[in-house]
Amino acid sequence: MPQHVVIIGAVALGPKAAARFKRLEPDSRVTMVDRGRLISYGGCGIPYYVSGDVSDASELQTTAFHMLRDEGFFRTTKDVDVRTETEALRIDRAARTVTLRHLPTGREEVLPYDKLVLATGSRPSSLSVPGAGLRGIHAVNGLEAAQRIRELVSAGGVSRAVVVGAGFIGLEMAVALADMWDVQTTVVEFRDQILPGVVGGNLARMAQRHMEEKGVVFRLNEQVRAFEGGAGGRVARVVTDNAALEAELVIVAVGVKPNSELARAAGLNVSERGGIRVDEFLRTSDARIFAGGDCVELRHLITGSPAYLPLGSLANRQGRVIGTNLAGGRARFPGAVGSWCVKLFDLSAAGTGLTLAAARAAGFDALCVHVSQLDRAHFHPDKGLMSLELVVQRGTGRVLGMQGLGVGGDALVGRVDVLAALLPSGPTAEDLGGLEMAYSPPFAAALDILNVLGNAAENILCGRNRGIQVDEFSALWAGRNGQGPYLLDCRERANAETLLQAHPEHWHNIPQGELRGRLAEIPRHQGIVLICNTGARSYEAFVTLAHAGFQDVVSVEGGMTAVLAAGLDI
Amino acid sequence: MPQHVVIIGAVALGPKAAARFKRLEPDSRVTMVDRGRLISYGGCGIPYYVSGDVSDASELQTTAFHMLRDEGFFRTTKDVDVRTETEALRIDRAARTVTLRHLPTGREEVLPYDKLVLATGSRPSSLSVPGAGLRGIHAVNGLEAAQRIRELVSAGGVSRAVVVGAGFIGLEMAVALADMWDVQTTVVEFRDQILPGVVGGNLARMAQRHMEEKGVVFRLNEQVRAFEGGAGGRVARVVTDNAALEAELVIVAVGVKPNSELARAAGLNVSERGGIRVDEFLRTSDARIFAGGDCVELRHLITGSPAYLPLGSLANRQGRVIGTNLAGGRARFPGAVGSWCVKLFDLSAAGTGLTLAAARAAGFDALCVHVSQLDRAHFHPDKGLMSLELVVQRGTGRVLGMQGLGVGGDALVGRVDVLAALLPSGPTAEDLGGLEMAYSPPFAAALDILNVLGNAAENILCGRNRGIQVDEFSALWAGRNGQGPYLLDCRERANAETLLQAHPEHWHNIPQGELRGRLAEIPRHQGIVLICNTGARSYEAFVTLAHAGFQDVVSVEGGMTAVLAAGLDI
Repeated sequence: MPQHVVIIGAVALGPKAAARFKRLEPDSRVTMVDRGRLISYGGCGIPYYVSGDVSDASELQTTAFHMLRDEGFFRTTKDVDVRTETEALRIDRAARTVTLRHLPTGREEVLPYDKLVLATGSRPSSLSVPGAGLRGIHAVNGLEAAQRIRELVSAGGVSRAVVVGAGFIGLEMAVALADMWDVQTTVVEFRDQILPGVVGGNLARMAQRHMEEKGVVFRLNEQVRAFEGGAGGRVARVVTDNAALEAELVIVAVGVKPNSELARAAGLNVSERGGIRVDEFLRTSDARIFAGGDCVELRHLITGSPAYLPLGSLANRQGRVIGTNLAGGRARFPGAVGSWCVKLFDLSAAGTGLTLAAARAAGFDALCVHVSQLDRAHFHPDKGLMSLELVVQRGTGRVLGMQGLGVGGDALVGRVDVLAALLPSGPTAEDLGGLEMAYSPPFAAALDILNVLGNAAENILCGRNRGIQVDEFSALWAGRNGQGPYLLDCRERANAETLLQAHPEHWHNIPQGELRGRLAEIPRHQGIVLICNTGARSYEAFVTLAHAGFQDVVSVEGGMTAVLAAGLDI
Repeated sequence: MPQHVVIIGAVALGPKAAARFKRLEPDSRVTMVDRGRLISYGGCGIPYYVSGDVSDASELQTTAFHMLRDEGFFRTTKDVDVRTETEALRIDRAARTVTLRHLPTGREEVLPYDKLVLATGSRPSSLSVPGAGLRGIHAVNGLEAAQRIRELVSAGGVSRAVVVGAGFIGLEMAVALADMWDVQTTVVEFRDQILPGVVGGNLARMAQRHMEEKGVVFRLNEQVRAFEGGAGGRVARVVTDNAALEAELVIVAVGVKPNSELARAAGLNVSERGGIRVDEFLRTSDARIFAGGDCVELRHLITGSPAYLPLGSLANRQGRVIGTNLAGGRARFPGAVGSWCVKLFDLSAAGTGLTLAAARAAGFDALCVHVSQLDRAHFHPDKGLMSLELVVQRGTGRVLGMQGLGVGGDALVGRVDVLAALLPSGPTAEDLGGLEMAYSPPFAAALDILNVLGNAAENILCGRNRGIQVDEFSALWAGRNGQGPYLLDCRERANAETLLQAHPEHWHNIPQGELRGRLAEIPRHQGIVLICNTGARSYEAFVTLAHAGFQDVVSVEGGMTAVLAAGLDI
């Protein structure tokens, strides 16, 4: 029997659910409402529109075949009614109605539904500090806000900008401003690293260093206390704990909050953090009401706990699941592992699953293994460096997550996607070592970096290698004048020469190939730190020393490559 | 107790097995022998050395940290003895000895072993036709042969070349010659498509067309009958069924054969096709003898049948497994799904699992689903076209394989690797539709092409869409003057205009958005073929027509994009 489905929210999930449902039940009716004037745009494209990579805002709203996805488009091609600039005021679950208000006219209407979809999305968190309402301070909040930012920048009135927040959107906006518009950009982040929560500190430092080389300034561990205005009520300065930063433009990107007030007011089950609770069919606590996208809480497939993952890719897939289930199907969305990627100038970052900190917070006895190596055959001219960190559980060897950086962004994302596909089934480091990866010199090394990473983790889990990360090495190096360990560079003499001359007291060199014959030169009663270029030869050296009875030995994972990429000055 | 391990073959698998074993059992001894003078080189890099992308042959033989992997390297860094230019003549399994001959001196020696590894690899198949021994006719057979080809080409004496065989190596060599040295190159293949056995005909035609645009000439369905010589015993002409092709250089790349004579002579279990049979621990029928790489037969993880997959990536991973098991470990290599990739000028091809033909040959009731779309957000400037074919089993929806082409090679290989990782666990089209893929506009579309492919397959499996491939469309088009079906272009008028004018009798247009209102224009008693740009709108149109009671409707998968890429001239 034909039904009437009302969908609240017409970006990403809403349109997908509507189109899928209508294909399955052409005789049913769909009304989709949205508060905004523009609908069905690619919100994740906003930084690329601000940068100018995407020349016109309408491109974010067109299909791949250049049709504008506006009300008329949905009416003619999808047979879906759309009402823009229309707010859903309240849901009456008993009467099965939604009360709508047309914002320009204030006219209200009570719309009956058979099934309802909440695709209300999220909104940027705001900073509650003095001056937050000054002109020139923008959140990245939909296409219309993006147009205002782009207009401001392209008019040439911005020479200095401050971005508050070093998450995905903050960094993408910093790249857009610095790279394309040559705006002197400072990123202020109150935590101690960029990409907080999604990568570990070592990768964060590497990525930060790359962005600094491109001219972006970072102020970490620093909180915004106030915005100060200049002429005409426009922002002129950002006042932090430590400084007053001049700026004509401020982007506030300090996270997002689910739009779940409507759901909560209707008595639906909503988590404390504000995510609407849904089951694996994406039904809310009312079986006639579905919800998905940035307004819901999902199940994290690794921890099994609720998680808030406002990611466009999840929203789009959920749209199809909801569309199917509106039509009586039983499509499932069991949860997510939280895969992401972001482009930062010439470097890309990506990850999936848990970081080391998140794994430990979830109660896993976890460790992290780092590999830095070329992303394709080392003799191929297109090669680039890739650094991956694998988070594994001690004992079981279960892989919990992976984060990485790479010059070759697609190559990096490819590896992350492979792991993401496997994560729900609980792969081990050994599984990763044995993965079949397509090989040809322009695309990979014969033993792919994922295989190497799995093998490296297995060696560490079995005690055949003992690694330290760059931050640990950095701390040891800082304390080198005390009773520190013996630093042994096991590269060839020519590679070690500069450091040997700069630090004759602290830097020692025995090439790995000579090690077995020169064991007598190595102190027996001092800790030993082995380092090479990437960690491969220091692992070989570790095996040699362990076999010769040396007890207190560690090898620096990622070697000098990781040390230099993190900007450690030795 | 220390053992003596003898490894026959020192390229790819042999060195990996040796190094792994020595790390696990440093007190044991390894002797690795090879017939060649050069060892441990990246054989898959040969076309890139011939092209000049890799400037010096030694680069294929160095580590990532620029150390030459020669006898001295293995002695000092790995504690492994290497004997080059040394042939293994016979194995005495009862006495546990191998008889070796040092080729330059002819000196023979009987070497005892505790365990033996056969890493004898493969050799190129040859053509048994008159003139096959002429100078200037080369197989791609190791680094020394590659050096001779490169010398010939770089000396400028080659203006025309013929490559026999359109498999990976043949095509890579054709690219190397045509792209970098501007040699007029003709590829002769006796089967009816390029990349026979690894992609279907439609993708093969698209790839062929791209190579033709780059100047390579293809002669399919044509067999070489003889080589004819000119001055000084050098080749001058390649005589085929249909032509005599002038050439100063001929590359014969008609497949490879396992080097298993030694194993067979020793009474080990060897398949009819010549692959040494091994179990999942890579043990031969003699538990003291392991084998891996191009000389063994593996289990295909989808068909469960034996398969011969001479791929460098498999050899390298097998090396580690053998190294572990030599030391008493229980590492497994259960088989492979056969992932591959190849770069053809600006287009890449890759695949994993079974092609449609292979699936049917293995007894699966299979079908193939084609999707052509952009590999990242359609508004992102770096976007490129990707075409994927998914092979699925009717009824179960089980995914059996995927092959594809893409402008963005890493992006394509990333998708193939994802599927390869899942294939052993038997994913369905629905699983593929729900896969979590990292998303950001520079890397993917919000609904990744893998999700779209899974969804498209599910729609077809459920009968919600009925697709035809480009070759089927091509056949219908060729017969358009008979009692053919009604061709309905459901793009916007402007896109269809040229074809409407060129073929007013045969080409019809109703934009998908207008279809519901114009059903009366469509004949009720004629088959209908729907086409759009990529297959997305023709699927929508299919749903509309099916709902309106039209029975005999199909939609062209991949749409005009696939039709044009295959070079069909309409």
